[in-house]
Amino acid sequence: MKRSGIITLTTDFGLGDPYVGVMKGVILSINPEIRLVDISHQIKVGDIPYAANILQESYHFFPKGTIHVAVVDPGVGGKRRPIMIGTKDYVFVGPDNGIFWPIVKAQHHVYVIHLTEKKYFLPRIISRTFHGRDIFAPVAAHLSCGIDPLKMGRKISDPTPLTLPSVEQKGNRLLGQITRVDNFGNLITNIHKEDLLKFLEGEKAVITVGDLIIEHIKKTYSEAITGEPVALIGSSDCLEISVNLGRASDQLGINSEQIVGMEVEVRQS
Amino acid sequence: MKRSGIITLTTDFGLGDPYVGVMKGVILSINPEIRLVDISHQIKVGDIPYAANILQESYHFFPKGTIHVAVVDPGVGGKRRPIMIGTKDYVFVGPDNGIFWPIVKAQHHVYVIHLTEKKYFLPRIISRTFHGRDIFAPVAAHLSCGIDPLKMGRKISDPTPLTLPSVEQKGNRLLGQITRVDNFGNLITNIHKEDLLKFLEGEKAVITVGDLIIEHIKKTYSEAITGEPVALIGSSDCLEISVNLGRASDQLGINSEQIVGMEVEVRQS
Amino acid sequence: MKRSGIITLTTDFGLGDPYVGVMKGVILSINPEIRLVDISHQIKVGDIPYAANILQESYHFFPKGTIHVAVVDPGVGGKRRPIMIGTKDYVFVGPDNGIFWPIVKAQHHVYVIHLTEKKYFLPRIISRTFHGRDIFAPVAAHLSCGIDPLKMGRKISDPTPLTLPSVEQKGNRLLGQITRVDNFGNLITNIHKEDLLKFLEGEKAVITVGDLIIEHIKKTYSEAITGEPVALIGSSDCLEISVNLGRASDQLGINSEQIVGMEVEVRQS
Repeated sequence: MKRSGIITLTTDFGLGDPYVGVMKGVILSINPEIRLVDISHQIKVGDIPYAANILQESYHFFPKGTIHVAVVDPGVGGKRRPIMIGTKDYVFVGPDNGIFWPIVKAQHHVYVIHLTEKKYFLPRIISRTFHGRDIFAPVAAHLSCGIDPLKMGRKISDPTPLTLPSVEQKGNRLLGQITRVDNFGNLITNIHKEDLLKFLEGEKAVITVGDLIIEHIKKTYSEAITGEPVALIGSSDCLEISVNLGRASDQLGINSEQIVGMEVEVRQS
Repeated sequence: MKRSGIITLTTDFGLGDPYVGVMKGVILSINPEIRLVDISHQIKVGDIPYAANILQESYHFFPKGTIHVAVVDPGVGGKRRPIMIGTKDYVFVGPDNGIFWPIVKAQHHVYVIHLTEKKYFLPRIISRTFHGRDIFAPVAAHLSCGIDPLKMGRKISDPTPLTLPSVEQKGNRLLGQITRVDNFGNLITNIHKEDLLKFLEGEKAVITVGDLIIEHIKKTYSEAITGEPVALIGSSDCLEISVNLGRASDQLGINSEQIVGMEVEVRQS
Repeated sequence: MKRSGIITLTTDFGLGDPYVGVMKGVILSINPEIRLVDISHQIKVGDIPYAANILQESYHFFPKGTIHVAVVDPGVGGKRRPIMIGTKDYVFVGPDNGIFWPIVKAQHHVYVIHLTEKKYFLPRIISRTFHGRDIFAPVAAHLSCGIDPLKMGRKISDPTPLTLPSVEQKGNRLLGQITRVDNFGNLITNIHKEDLLKFLEGEKAVITVGDLIIEHIKKTYSEAITGEPVALIGSSDCLEISVNLGRASDQLGINSEQIVGMEVEVRQS
């Protein structure tokens, strides 16, 4: 794989603590030429499926050869393995807790390596609480310098899977879930455009989420009148519930956290 | 225009979603050498005047040749045009919704281009909901590589204006508005230093905002005693109401959102 | 000192206002090749001890030759001096209000310079309210270009100290304080690993914080059962109170701000 000179970071560290800055310091101490890009550091604490989702939506927009470091790691210091996963075009570094599972499933991966070679960790006693700094940052940095991944540990064949909510067809209904509420109050579902089109067979859709019933799928927010709920295929290529110039999450009258995981039903009209 | 190798980003995307990271991935995929700087991603959702204000205050502190991308775009996917505005020293890329209007008005602009050339957009079906990723990021990146702006669309002469609150002299009163409450609780007004000095003609000022009456203009926060409201010319060269070691927004007893737009009155004492 | 080509920024500016972006614009206008890394911009407004703590925990993870700019500056525009402190491996630039005191105390510093040479400030009238932009950013940028620190002002020998809560042994008790509650709800204390080990003399510890009593020190979060409070040596090498897969700050039933400064007691069991 060619190298892009870019490392991205995705964590649940927030931006108030010095943890993200420290990881960057560690990386730059090893590879001063690297470019660092934040994907998000405001993943809900410990929410592995959320991080997996964000990462899956983002990683392929970066140049081939980019190294993606993701640290949502509630099991840090315990038995979970630190790993590196190589696909044809990208490398992923982080804990073996399912965070990379959607990518492992969708992509032909070239290798999964259990990171064991301490030479590529931070040269001090490794903490039991901050492997982002002590293992994942330095491993990514050494990799970006051209170190052979196979020197960093041993190949494994059993990366930890992640159970993500599936999309199911039950009779004449397609059932999915809301996976994320974004900054605009948009409800992003796990129903992919392909599955939706296949299910609808050219018919119009009726979409139900909680108390909201939406009569058909529009192409853009502004096709709806102000304040009206609208269903459309969002930028992640999944079905999304929005309100033109408003917040869909507010219209449902329950807070963002409660909406995540709610069932979304699609029927042919 | 010479190139600075820098693109700045100003959006209402927040930092929790992957949207900003994805725009950076798109830009770096086209120009791996570019430097990216965030101005703010916490613009209130859809608040075009606020974004215009922030941008106007910031853009000129960057090296000449910098490209400023701004995406506060409630009309995305509708009829509003994607545009690029070139001034003598900077280029601005974003939606034609008035976000660049203060700059268009204040600066002699060299060109306004309606971006129509799909060759410089993201090479996939363009979403109707995320032109930051699909149009503005790639256009800015191609521009940073030296592509001639005139190849990216056609010149227009009618960029969309923005109505911003004006400063008016009514008899012996100068009336302005609060445009922003910053992280320190400072109330930033639209009354520029020049207008204020001209109005005061060397006399001292009495400033009224809601229930607060401030007797004269100080040079620095610390000239006031702790907890005392103070009026001064802030770092944006506009009149600012502050509280030494406190928060002016708290002293007015109404929340930050309510204060924005409040009238500020200046009289000669 | 060799140069690393890196400047870090630590402020209480938040990320909503354009202030951090503007500082970066000023720096890049002077040194277009510099790399900028954020440590944190969400320091509680005006909280110098907090900033000093964050900086002390982070600075040494960056490459030698890095310039650390820190601006938590409630006395801006008043009599406090703008300073630069050089140690063997790093330079610190910011207000002389104690923010660098833990570093000054712990490291042999080579020089402390009162920044007076206006040639290295922003070439316009210096504001009284934003020395981050007008003094500290340009001074750091010029320094990163190789300007001799001694040309930037005059040496002083009396940098302002900072009183930080100390750790005291009272009879058979070791008394410290909580200095920070992090994004995970972990309570970080000022009791350093070295002091703790010395105090315990190989015995087990009983730790008391508010209503919580914790029976001994573990090595990792996951040694505790879910929801159980656990004491361990955290990534900052200090004693830390955590809850496995929960938030210690929530268990104490008082908000994060109230917990900072709370007494922590350690006894031999």
